Amino acid sequence: MKLIIGNKNYSSWSLRPWLLMAYHGLDFETVLIPLYSAEMPALMAKYCPSKKVPTLHDGALIVSDSLAICEYISEKYLSNNGWPSDIETRAKARALAAEMHSGFFQIRTQMPMDIREKHKTYDASDNALFAEIARIDAIWSQAVDDEFLCGSFGIADCMFAPVAFRFQTYDVALSAPAKRYQKALLALPAMQAWQDAALLETMIIKNLNI
Amino acid sequence: MKLIIGNKNYSSWSLRPWLLMAYHGLDFETVLIPLYSAEMPALMAKYCPSKKVPTLHDGALIVSDSLAICEYISEKYLSNNGWPSDIETRAKARALAAEMHSGFFQIRTQMPMDIREKHKTYDASDNALFAEIARIDAIWSQAVDDEFLCGSFGIADCMFAPVAFRFQTYDVALSAPAKRYQKALLALPAMQAWQDAALLETMIIKNLNI
Repeated sequence: MKLIIGNKNYSSWSLRPWLLMAYHGLDFETVLIPLYSAEMPALMAKYCPSKKVPTLHDGALIVSDSLAICEYISEKYLSNNGWPSDIETRAKARALAAEMHSGFFQIRTQMPMDIREKHKTYDASDNALFAEIARIDAIWSQAVDDEFLCGSFGIADCMFAPVAFRFQTYDVALSAPAKRYQKALLALPAMQAWQDAALLETMIIKNLNI
Repeated sequence: MKLIIGNKNYSSWSLRPWLLMAYHGLDFETVLIPLYSAEMPALMAKYCPSKKVPTLHDGALIVSDSLAICEYISEKYLSNNGWPSDIETRAKARALAAEMHSGFFQIRTQMPMDIREKHKTYDASDNALFAEIARIDAIWSQAVDDEFLCGSFGIADCMFAPVAFRFQTYDVALSAPAKRYQKALLALPAMQAWQDAALLETMIIKNLNI
């Protein structure tokens, strides 16, 4: 299996399936396409018919989109353990994953993932941004009785993992239970490994919206 | 079961799970919340903890998000037939559904679903919009060997159904295979029923982005 990703420092969408696969110790190779680089077009042409990262190659099968890759990995290699086993909890986990997958545009555009950066500022007076941060806080606070969002670590957590890095970079103040969840995500060995690799990257991309 | 939706004329997200449920003849009640109306806040407070439509109530379970609702319905009531039975085809169907779920911002904002309207114009010189229309055409053209995107009618088709209405409103020129797919979607009895109900609605919402 090959997972095609973007720069670890920047590519929030790439992190999500990578984290699921790395957390579970799956055997896969990572192919990193430096975004907006001179070699990007040729590498995209070779690996990504959708012209997007992440893209998974599993034999002849090519799957794009972070959520679709996670669903496939869960079915094929994790005995469906990417989601909670109870159908109602699974529905709630999928709703959280989908909310992240289709929304939070202010956080995405105003707080791009940039793991190497620390203490970046943001416009705390922006009501739309503030509402999204509050919504993330409310979701993360649901994890208070379990370490992760819906019991053990799963796809819903993968979807929010890049936000843990963003809020670290932007020093976003969180409620105590939300902060505890953020810390649990950041402490995962796979998250630490991704961060360590990001810190070694040197390419700088400005004005990114990925 | 109750499915909470917005105006049928406008609410593209609501159409998706409604279509899956109506196509399969499931027994459910539709609760329509007129968007941006005076009664909306009270109805949202009553039915939609996420403050969004669509929201599904199934007994005590409340699920929001069009894709998460479709996944739940497929698991609980359709013996997983919302997706293709073959794991690789299912992965491709989920990738298509996810691409629609998280993207196509130009089509969404420049071509809002407004079923009652016909022959609306759009900026054909907008390259970003044109690229999205071309991508939709390419996806729909994949349905050439089957009537629908990945074999029999499923969740991937539900995700693209609102675009069939949008392209009808905006007279978007399509390739022959893509046009054939659009016609197949529009001819579904459930799509006709939704359209008939939309045509009877009288509320007008301007500048919507839903």
